[in-house]
Amino acid sequence: MEDVVVRVLEKVELKDPVLIVGLPGLGNVAKLAADYLKEAIGATKFVTIYSKYFPPQVYVNESGMIRMVSNDLYYYKAKTPEERNLLILVGDYQGISPEGQYELTDKVLSLVSGMGVRQVFTLAGFAQGHMVENPRVIGAATSNSLIEKMKKLGVVFARNEPGSGLIGASGLFLGLGELYKMESICLMGETSGYFVDPRSAEAVLRILLKTFNMDVDLSDLEAKAKEIDRIASRLRETEAKLVTDTPSTGGPSQPKEDLGYIG
Amino acid sequence: MEDVVVRVLEKVELKDPVLIVGLPGLGNVAKLAADYLKEAIGATKFVTIYSKYFPPQVYVNESGMIRMVSNDLYYYKAKTPEERNLLILVGDYQGISPEGQYELTDKVLSLVSGMGVRQVFTLAGFAQGHMVENPRVIGAATSNSLIEKMKKLGVVFARNEPGSGLIGASGLFLGLGELYKMESICLMGETSGYFVDPRSAEAVLRILLKTFNMDVDLSDLEAKAKEIDRIASRLRETEAKLVTDTPSTGGPSQPKEDLGYIG
Amino acid sequence: MEDVVVRVLEKVELKDPVLIVGLPGLGNVAKLAADYLKEAIGATKFVTIYSKYFPPQVYVNESGMIRMVSNDLYYYKAKTPEERNLLILVGDYQGISPEGQYELTDKVLSLVSGMGVRQVFTLAGFAQGHMVENPRVIGAATSNSLIEKMKKLGVVFARNEPGSGLIGASGLFLGLGELYKMESICLMGETSGYFVDPRSAEAVLRILLKTFNMDVDLSDLEAKAKEIDRIASRLRETEAKLVTDTPSTGGPSQPKEDLGYIG
Amino acid sequence: MEDVVVRVLEKVELKDPVLIVGLPGLGNVAKLAADYLKEAIGATKFVTIYSKYFPPQVYVNESGMIRMVSNDLYYYKAKTPEERNLLILVGDYQGISPEGQYELTDKVLSLVSGMGVRQVFTLAGFAQGHMVENPRVIGAATSNSLIEKMKKLGVVFARNEPGSGLIGASGLFLGLGELYKMESICLMGETSGYFVDPRSAEAVLRILLKTFNMDVDLSDLEAKAKEIDRIASRLRETEAKLVTDTPSTGGPSQPKEDLGYIG
Repeated sequence: MEDVVVRVLEKVELKDPVLIVGLPGLGNVAKLAADYLKEAIGATKFVTIYSKYFPPQVYVNESGMIRMVSNDLYYYKAKTPEERNLLILVGDYQGISPEGQYELTDKVLSLVSGMGVRQVFTLAGFAQGHMVENPRVIGAATSNSLIEKMKKLGVVFARNEPGSGLIGASGLFLGLGELYKMESICLMGETSGYFVDPRSAEAVLRILLKTFNMDVDLSDLEAKAKEIDRIASRLRETEAKLVTDTPSTGGPSQPKEDLGYIG
Repeated sequence: MEDVVVRVLEKVELKDPVLIVGLPGLGNVAKLAADYLKEAIGATKFVTIYSKYFPPQVYVNESGMIRMVSNDLYYYKAKTPEERNLLILVGDYQGISPEGQYELTDKVLSLVSGMGVRQVFTLAGFAQGHMVENPRVIGAATSNSLIEKMKKLGVVFARNEPGSGLIGASGLFLGLGELYKMESICLMGETSGYFVDPRSAEAVLRILLKTFNMDVDLSDLEAKAKEIDRIASRLRETEAKLVTDTPSTGGPSQPKEDLGYIG
Repeated sequence: MEDVVVRVLEKVELKDPVLIVGLPGLGNVAKLAADYLKEAIGATKFVTIYSKYFPPQVYVNESGMIRMVSNDLYYYKAKTPEERNLLILVGDYQGISPEGQYELTDKVLSLVSGMGVRQVFTLAGFAQGHMVENPRVIGAATSNSLIEKMKKLGVVFARNEPGSGLIGASGLFLGLGELYKMESICLMGETSGYFVDPRSAEAVLRILLKTFNMDVDLSDLEAKAKEIDRIASRLRETEAKLVTDTPSTGGPSQPKEDLGYIG
Repeated sequence: MEDVVVRVLEKVELKDPVLIVGLPGLGNVAKLAADYLKEAIGATKFVTIYSKYFPPQVYVNESGMIRMVSNDLYYYKAKTPEERNLLILVGDYQGISPEGQYELTDKVLSLVSGMGVRQVFTLAGFAQGHMVENPRVIGAATSNSLIEKMKKLGVVFARNEPGSGLIGASGLFLGLGELYKMESICLMGETSGYFVDPRSAEAVLRILLKTFNMDVDLSDLEAKAKEIDRIASRLRETEAKLVTDTPSTGGPSQPKEDLGYIG
């Protein structure tokens, strides 16, 4: 079989579309944001991608129907002159080997390059190792003009963040995108790294919406974020109680606001 | 060498055959059922598949003759108008890497597609984590009509079972089968996950026989199931004795009917 | 680069040659035997095989010269009408992945098939898990006639030995050899599995020499075997002393002749 | 995508150039030396190599610009008749799998072979397991004439060093280089194996400079070496204090100059 199987469900032509990539990863920030966006704006699936670089797995829904793990491309036609035509890549997995990561990213880039994509926005989480009340969105990009533009929309391009680089699809789309002459940026929502983080996803999404002059109701995402806040808050209380009740071991107690030890 | 080597031992033509897949896996349910079926109905081997996606291994029989690990296809010609022509895939291993799983499944599907297969039944075990007296057969399928049909034969399509999806060949044949326009179902016999489980294999086989209007003597499989029951029963008694004899550690004792801790 | 690089150093034509395979493995039995044989009979290297399925490694000799890891084919022209023309495969490594094992074995078989090889003898160690004073040679083969012939020369074809099959090149040459219509046998010298075992290599070699009516001085191999015996014997004494000196832990003491715990 | 993507930034023609390879590895000796050399002599980047055999990673610099992990070729045109035209290979990673190592090395060799390279110098660290005050440079090569020549420049070709061979690109360039009829040598700077080692890099670089009759100011590298010396020295003092303060366990104390236990 082909290493990456591309099934085109509908032939789509769009003027100057932008690719948005939101695959599973840290805090599930990217997947939460992209899945929410495609639902909220009513984007249409037009490509399904299967690959031997994904796990050999199918999902089963409540009525017993199966679906093979995949990545999927959705399109959205701009409804106002201020909006942009969008392609949104979402999926169940990133490639499970380094080679698979390269092959899958390259295949998608090759496909969307043929559709006229010249700009890519990838989404990601940025692990801080501690709880983040008001997550910033940190950027990394391939051009200074894009950096300057996104700074104005609130994206932070900070020294030594992220120091060690980006690992996985969100970075690779930027790097390989350059070989396709695409300009691209990764938008990383700060997150603890311990929880699924809808608040971080919301922060990322707000930047995206501003960038593309779109208006989307984010209340469902906010509700999810508050639910996670409640869980985290209860965990903090339990911890505080444990710290109080536990005989001191002589060492400094763990700072209460740091949930870093929660697997 | 070719990634997957297909050796055709006999040219076979069958009208509208169904593929049954029973490879090693959880509780060895699928392999037990498919091996028993092919023996009981006198199916004939006509294809042997070797592959670098299997371990580099040969088996040696009692007289010193070797046989390389393989998957094998058997055929069975319907003996009554109510029966179906069958192709049965059995083997020593599933592919040992994700890529191998995809490549092997696709190769078999491509082969049987050329023989006119439009329907696939894969067999599997479904781990419950505790002993199951009367294993149900749980289904996952690619079409609602097949789900409705199999429900009438006693297959259960339950909510959240299996929640996390199917991993391995039994699911992949369904997923990739759709690319070959095949309708398919996975029949999963409930099993503890700790023992080889002929009773679960028997439950799966009874559904298969009903589906294809076949009559097969299952007494050998029942005998095997009773032998395993005896072993499990002795293990439970030993456990009960150990629990009684062991000084309490203050915690709740393990429920006796749960053999989950047996590796 | 090619997955397997074959460098032919000399064009060789031989009538009806036999392939002998002695690669590193259990107790180094096969490598010891094949390396000794090729030296003793003055076989000539005519093919070197490099591959990305070997480790990325070079060896450095005492004067600082390097040599890349490889497998090598030697040839030997029969000196009497009773002897056979031989090809001997030796090397630093077997393929380090399952795929590599298949690809390397297939490449060598394809090469020697073109040279007229119709019979393959692979050498191996057979782990008994305890010291073996007089190692037997256990066989596994692809034809009954070869089994009968080798039985007469002292090879044992015993029930349930080896029960679980052969893993690696020594078995794969037999299995894949059948696809090249070659008749083949694996000669396994019994060995503890804890030491490099020249005595087991000697036992295997004696069978080979009988098979091909060759006369080779094995005294160097015997000397090595005695050296290993001395080391093992000293280890046994140390162990016996330790057992005597150590306060009993209440359990049964390890049998003295079992060196199974020596890594 | 191609397994190894070669982007040529500038078409370069040089007479009889020598390839110098300095990739990350033990003590980072090779990378330190080659990076320092290319900066000091003002070599020009003319080829960038991307590959699925590298990790799927991009680096982000202080202003937020990304760069995909790569290997890069630089060229240097001899400024005097005594100097040599040089190609210098540096990079972020070696191939992360054995297959990747072979494929990447072969691709570079194929490329530079087309540019007329007939001689290769690879750099490496040689782990001694203890601190080395005055690191020697140990050699391994593909020809006796090169060994004799380099001996005169101070390279040591010692018995049993390195006994077990070289693993990775520094050895593979030598081994595969022979298939391209290249003469080559690996220059290994002795190093503890516990620290990044600019002093060892300096020793290797001095040999290189002598070989190519070049004059380079090494004071920056010396400064780095002294900084590392200070760190190591402080660690030694801490250790000495710990040894004095710690109640004896009855065994011999670790030699103070051996920092082998520092991870």
